[in-house]
Formats: sequence, structure tokens, C-alpha cells
Amino acid sequence: MTTRNVRLLIEYEGTNYSGWQWQKNTKTVQETLTDAIRKVLQEDVKIHGAGRTDAGVHALGQVANFETHSKIPAKQLLRAINSYLPHDITIKEVSDIEDSFHAQYSAKSKIYQYTLLNDWIRTSLNRNFCHVYGFPLDMSKMIMAARCLIGTHDFTSFTTKAFADKNRIRTIKNLEIRKEGKYIYFLVEADGFLYKMVRTIVGTLLEVGRERMDVSHIKNLLMTKKRKLAGPVVPAKGLCLKEVKY
Amino acid sequence: MTTRNVRLLIEYEGTNYSGWQWQKNTKTVQETLTDAIRKVLQEDVKIHGAGRTDAGVHALGQVANFETHSKIPAKQLLRAINSYLPHDITIKEVSDIEDSFHAQYSAKSKIYQYTLLNDWIRTSLNRNFCHVYGFPLDMSKMIMAARCLIGTHDFTSFTTKAFADKNRIRTIKNLEIRKEGKYIYFLVEADGFLYKMVRTIVGTLLEVGRERMDVSHIKNLLMTKKRKLAGPVVPAKGLCLKEVKY
Repeated sequence: MTTRNVRLLIEYEGTNYSGWQWQKNTKTVQETLTDAIRKVLQEDVKIHGAGRTDAGVHALGQVANFETHSKIPAKQLLRAINSYLPHDITIKEVSDIEDSFHAQYSAKSKIYQYTLLNDWIRTSLNRNFCHVYGFPLDMSKMIMAARCLIGTHDFTSFTTKAFADKNRIRTIKNLEIRKEGKYIYFLVEADGFLYKMVRTIVGTLLEVGRERMDVSHIKNLLMTKKRKLAGPVVPAKGLCLKEVKY
Repeated sequence: MTTRNVRLLIEYEGTNYSGWQWQKNTKTVQETLTDAIRKVLQEDVKIHGAGRTDAGVHALGQVANFETHSKIPAKQLLRAINSYLPHDITIKEVSDIEDSFHAQYSAKSKIYQYTLLNDWIRTSLNRNFCHVYGFPLDMSKMIMAARCLIGTHDFTSFTTKAFADKNRIRTIKNLEIRKEGKYIYFLVEADGFLYKMVRTIVGTLLEVGRERMDVSHIKNLLMTKKRKLAGPVVPAKGLCLKEVKY
């Protein structure tokens, strides 16, 4: 029996999930998606996601793939799977793709966006999608600090010890900070990310912006590889997996 | 005992409320706000809102006022009231204002925004804040139709019979339609709005955009004053009270 490889583009609000990856005794996006696909295909499939987003993290452009024996056309699959998914998860695209495609291993880079509301007063409409941060921030200092992180570095200082991969060298292709009104957006593109890496980078850049850390300290952080010298991890709800590039 | 007049700028997500105005046996924004203020001031206040938003309608710039004997400074009031409010309602500003100010009667105009996602596929991140509409739309025809509605007219065709005010003449100062990617925004500024007026206007403009109604029919609608000749009412969740002008 022949199989085909199916690619999914997925949007989800992470608020009510314990992240992407399957875990015992808790609801995850991967599990919810697997259940919906099982109902449509009457078949157990193994879904590979491009990025293991943490609890509370959102996605506008998560990519996943799975193999199936089903012959249901892609367009029909999209509607059928969405009809079995809760409204905080949406399949945006379904397409047939070459057998060699693997959502995680084939990915060239991923782009995460972190959204900060730089205000003393909270927001109601956007409350699940941004971190509210009251302190005044020096944008030019944050941009200078961000530049030091672009390139290939050992990011040991920007991850959590317990979960750290053995190889902590990653390449940040781009790190952009953009201000729109009271909102500040951090866009980070890299070939891969360590556990809590984006949120530690943003937390560290905020320390620089608040002038509690000097721009020059960023280079020390990359060299000394000491997590405790970096800034705090900012909350998950401001983070969104925007795009996966292949 | 002297009183002072306090002005509030309020943001709320209407999803879990039966609209702004106090009603028996159901949760409204006005009631929730009154409860929070009572807890802070230990005093019963009567809150006047600029616009009576319907169930499910949001606000970025609702304005309200109330009289109080309290001497608590405005800045302190803001923090205190927010601490008693659920997170889907936020006071963005508190200020002292002249006694003659009344949020509803002093208003010169109000601006509502309606958000449409012109796509066949739903959205997860924005699901409570837009109406998903799959049919292709002719933007230029909708813009032409919108122009016919600007000015002073009897809007009987664009309201619900049962709740209609006796005087149904209103002045639309501006009606703008803007496309950004797959989103279409309808911005309507008027000196006042009839019940469900914005949502009936948008529903009618969509009929024109879909070419099920001719642009020239809009003038007939204004003249004949027959509700049943207008388009359907679009869902509340796409609507947001953006600004009140004084």
C-alpha cells in the first residue's frame, strides 16, 4: 500500500495548551491535531512539527507533516480536519509534498515574533498576545545589543540548563526590533532555537533597554556562557512562531 | 458635600458580556464596572456610557463618566478600579472633568470599526474580533456604495424596527473601507447610531461587493425606508467602538 506525505500550515492560540509536543496527562496542540486527523482518516498518523512551541506560545505559521494511506484530496482534508478541531487551532493550508520532506529536519530557518506592550496599563483586547512592560526603554541601545547577537554563536547563556541541547551553537540570521505606537516587536530568525532562547534574548534586551545592563555585556554573555548573567525569561504569551522557511 | 465629575476611557472585549448597558439577570460591562467602582469608592455611582454597545461588541475607546464624593486622585483610581476588574475590561485613563460633561450627551461623534477577514478559512488568533467572509468582494463597488451613505439621511432601512428611535435621521461624517492583506476594515463616523446600524450598513455593503445588490440600490434604500430591502446584519464580534469625539 502506497503512502503520501502531507504538509500542514497551522495557526493556533497557545493559551489553553501545554505547548506543541505530546505530553502525558495534559492537553497539547500535537495531540489535539492528531485526534482530529484520526477522526477524519480513521487512521493513526504521526505528526512531525517544525517547532516545539512551549506552553502558552502561539503560532501563525507552524508547519507539520504526516504520512497517510488516505486518498482524500488536500482541499477536502483541510475542511474536514478543521471541522474536528477546536477554534483555537486552525489548519490554514494542506498540500501534498515530496516524500523526503520533514517539517523539522527540512527547515532552513524559523522566525519567531515577540510582542511587547510598553505601557503601565494592561490591555484587554490583546491580553493573551503580548507582555505588558512599564519601564521606559532606550530603543537604540536595544538595537545595538541585538546586533551583537546576530551571527553564529554558542547560546548557552540564553537557554535553560536542564533542557539544554549538547550543541548550543546556533546562527541568528536576523534580529529586528520595531516600534509601532506603544507596541515593540522583536523578530528573530535563526536556523534553530534552544529551549526558551527567544524569551531569554528578549528578557536580556529589555535589561539593556532599561539601562540595567550595558550593551557591551552582550559579548561577555556569548563568551562566558553563563545563564545567570543573562536577563530573565519573558512570559510565553508574547511569543508567536510566525514562519518556517524551507 | 461637593461632588466631582470623573471621566473614564475604557477598553473591553465584549465576547463574554451581554453588551454595555445594565440588564436584569445577565452580565454587562456597565454592571461589572459599577461593581468594581463601588468596591473602590465604597459608594454607589451611576455610570453614563457614550455608546450602548451590543452583546459581543468590543471597545477600544468607550468613554464614560460618573459623579462621586470621593477625593481619591485620578491616577490612583485608575489602578484601584483595574485591580477589581476582570481582565477583559480595562480602564485606560481616568481624569477629572467639568461638571457639565456627560459621556453620551456631550459626544460630537463616535467612530466604529468593523473587521472582516475575506477568506474561506477561519482564524484562531483573531477569532473573537472579526467576521470571516469567503465570497470575493469588489472593493471599488463597495466604496462607491459607501459614499452614497455619507451625509445626513433617514437611516430607517438600516436599523431594527422593534428598537428604532422615533428620529432616525443621523449624519455619517465618514465611511472608509480599507483593505490590508486579507482583512477589510470598515470605519464609520457618525453623530449618532441607530440600533444595529453599523452592522446593517456593513451587511448591505457586502451584498454590493458580492454583486447581489447594485450600487444604485443604496439611494433607494435611503428613500424607501424599508428595512427588508437592506442586507443582513453581520455578527457582533467584528464590531469595535474605536473612539468618541467631543
